[in-house]
Amino acid sequence: MRGDHDSIRAVSWEHGALQLLDQRLLPTQEQYLRLDDSAAVAAAIRQMVVRGAPAIGISAGYAAVLAARDRFAENAADWRTGFEQDLAVVQQARPTAVNLHWALQRMRVKAAGLEGDPVPALLEEARAIHHEDIRANRTMGELGAAFIEAGSAVLTHCNTGSLATGGYGTALGVIRSAWAAGRLTGVFADETRPWLQGARLTAWELVRDAIPVTLLVDGAAAHLMKQGRVQWVIVGSDRIAANGDVANKIGTYSAAVAARHHGVKFMVVAPSSTVDLAVPSGAGIPIETRPASEVLELGGHGVAAAGAAAWNPAFDVTPAELVDVIVTERGVVEQPDRAKMAALME
Amino acid sequence: MRGDHDSIRAVSWEHGALQLLDQRLLPTQEQYLRLDDSAAVAAAIRQMVVRGAPAIGISAGYAAVLAARDRFAENAADWRTGFEQDLAVVQQARPTAVNLHWALQRMRVKAAGLEGDPVPALLEEARAIHHEDIRANRTMGELGAAFIEAGSAVLTHCNTGSLATGGYGTALGVIRSAWAAGRLTGVFADETRPWLQGARLTAWELVRDAIPVTLLVDGAAAHLMKQGRVQWVIVGSDRIAANGDVANKIGTYSAAVAARHHGVKFMVVAPSSTVDLAVPSGAGIPIETRPASEVLELGGHGVAAAGAAAWNPAFDVTPAELVDVIVTERGVVEQPDRAKMAALME
Repeated sequence: MRGDHDSIRAVSWEHGALQLLDQRLLPTQEQYLRLDDSAAVAAAIRQMVVRGAPAIGISAGYAAVLAARDRFAENAADWRTGFEQDLAVVQQARPTAVNLHWALQRMRVKAAGLEGDPVPALLEEARAIHHEDIRANRTMGELGAAFIEAGSAVLTHCNTGSLATGGYGTALGVIRSAWAAGRLTGVFADETRPWLQGARLTAWELVRDAIPVTLLVDGAAAHLMKQGRVQWVIVGSDRIAANGDVANKIGTYSAAVAARHHGVKFMVVAPSSTVDLAVPSGAGIPIETRPASEVLELGGHGVAAAGAAAWNPAFDVTPAELVDVIVTERGVVEQPDRAKMAALME
Repeated sequence: MRGDHDSIRAVSWEHGALQLLDQRLLPTQEQYLRLDDSAAVAAAIRQMVVRGAPAIGISAGYAAVLAARDRFAENAADWRTGFEQDLAVVQQARPTAVNLHWALQRMRVKAAGLEGDPVPALLEEARAIHHEDIRANRTMGELGAAFIEAGSAVLTHCNTGSLATGGYGTALGVIRSAWAAGRLTGVFADETRPWLQGARLTAWELVRDAIPVTLLVDGAAAHLMKQGRVQWVIVGSDRIAANGDVANKIGTYSAAVAARHHGVKFMVVAPSSTVDLAVPSGAGIPIETRPASEVLELGGHGVAAAGAAAWNPAFDVTPAELVDVIVTERGVVEQPDRAKMAALME
C-alpha cells in the first residue's frame, strides 16, 4: 500500500470559527481564512475561497452553526427567523451544487427540534456532515477502485480531492485508492480552464501525496484518448438528476463525449447528497454563468483582446447515457437510469 | 457588405528585411521585429513570433531571400552550398506545418535556374508566394462562405486570420466573407490553450474589424454545441495527409469529435500548399511536442503546482471521416478521401 492517505484539511472548525484554506491562492500561497459569521461563509463560497460540491456543503453546515450562534445571542426567544434569513443568503451563494441545499436542509431539520441554546447540537450535526463525508469518500474510493484493472491510466477533470471535500476526495479518492492498490500506471489531469483547478489544486494534492501527475490542456484530452493512453475518465459531480444526468465542472461533457467516441470508460464519483431526485433530468439543473472576466483575464491581468465578449458557464451536463458508472457511498450504479437511481436512493 | 476587409499585415518585406509583428506580445503590445538574416527568421518561427502554417511558409520564403543575399555576398561563385545549409536550418524550425517545407522547396526550385545575383528573382518569388496566399484566402473565403446558410453561428479554434497568413485568413477568411455577406449571427472562438491564440489573436483581429466575437474556454465547446448555438466549426490546418486527415492546433480534434456527436458541420480551410500527398495518412504527420512550461506557466509565472509534469502536444490529427468539407483555393472537397484529394491536387 502506498499513498493511501491525504494530508490536507481545507475546511475545519477551529476555536469557534470556520477555517478555510483560500483555494484561490493555491499553489502559490497557503493562506487560511477565519470566518466568524454566516455572511462571511456565503461570500467565501461565492468567491470560490472554498469550492467543490461536498466542501461547499460542509462549509454551509458550519455556516448554519455560526448563524444560530449570532441569532441566539441577539434574540434567544426568537432566533429562528434570523437563522432562516441567514441560511437563505448562504443557499444563494452558488446555484448548481445541490450539496449546499442538502446540508442546509439537514441543519434546518436538526434546528427544528431544539430547545435552548442550539449551538452545541448544531455543531455536532455540522461535524457529523463533515465526518460522514470523509467516510463516504473512503467507501467510494474502494468501490470505484474495484472497477479499475491493474495497469490502467486515468484522466480526471477539475479538482475532486481533499480540497473539494471533507478530505480524501471523490474522483480523486478513487484515484488515491487505485494508486494505493498499485493498479495505476499514470494519472493525467486536465488543467481545467478557466479556474485551473486541475493545474493548481489537483496537481498540488497529488504532488503532496507523491502520486505522479501529468497535466494537459483541456483540448488535448481527446488526442490523449485517441492514443489509447487512458482507460478511464473519472470525475466528480455537483448535482445528479433523477435520471442519472450529471452536472459537473465545464469541460466534463466534452471529456465524456470524447470518452464514448474512443471506448474509454466514464466514471462519476459523488456522495449520495449530490443526487437530487427532485430534478427529473439534467435540463432542470440550474447552470451557473460566472463573470466573463474569468475567461478574459488571468491572475487579474487581461489576456484577451479588449472588446471581446466571453461566455463563461461554470458547469455542463453529461447525459446518463454517456456515464458507465456512478459511484456513491450507498453503492454503485452502472449504466444509470431513473429506476436504478431511485433504487439507490431508497 | 460589411467587414469584408482586414487591416493587419503581420508579415512584410520592408527595406530589404523581413518585418514580423511579434505575436507573442499581442494583444498587449504591437511590436514589429526587423529580421536581417535567415537564422533570425528560423528563430522567430521556432519561438512563435510568427505562427500559422501559411504565415510560416511566407516567412520562410523571405528567409530564403535573406540567405541568398548573405551567401552570395560571401561567395558569389559558390553561394548555393551555404544557401542550402541556411534553408535546412529554417526547415527544422517547426516540424508539423508542411507549408514551411513547401515554400522552401519552391524557393530552391527557383534558385536552381538562376545565374548571377539571385536576390531579385528570389525576392520576386517570395513576394509571389505571399500575394498568392492572400489571393487564395480571398478565394477560399468565398468558397467556404457559400456553405454557410444565413442565420448561422460558427465556432473557430486557434487563429487562422491575417496574423496566421499573408492576410485575410483561411478559416477566419471564410468567417470574414460569411460575415460580410450577412450570413452570420455570431462568431464563437475557443480561447485555445496553451498559447491562447483565440483569446489573444482571433479576438484582436475580429474586434479590429468590428466583427463581434464571443470567447469561451476550450472545454465549453461541446456544451455550446449541445445547446444548438453553432451550426459550423471552421478551422485551419497545418498539414493535410493524402487521405484527407487533418493536422491542426491541439484541441481541434476534440472539437471535431464533439461536432460529429451533435450533428454540427466541420469545415477545414487551408491553401493547397497544406496538402502533403507524400504522407499517406495522419499517422505519418510529425506532431510537435512543445515544452511543458507552456502548460505549467502563464505569462512567465508558474500557475501549476511545483512538481507536476505536463504533456504538451502542439497539434492533433482529425481523421477525414470527421471532416465535412475541406476548402482550398483549388476548390472544395466534401467528405474527403484519398481519391478526392488526389483529384484536387492533379
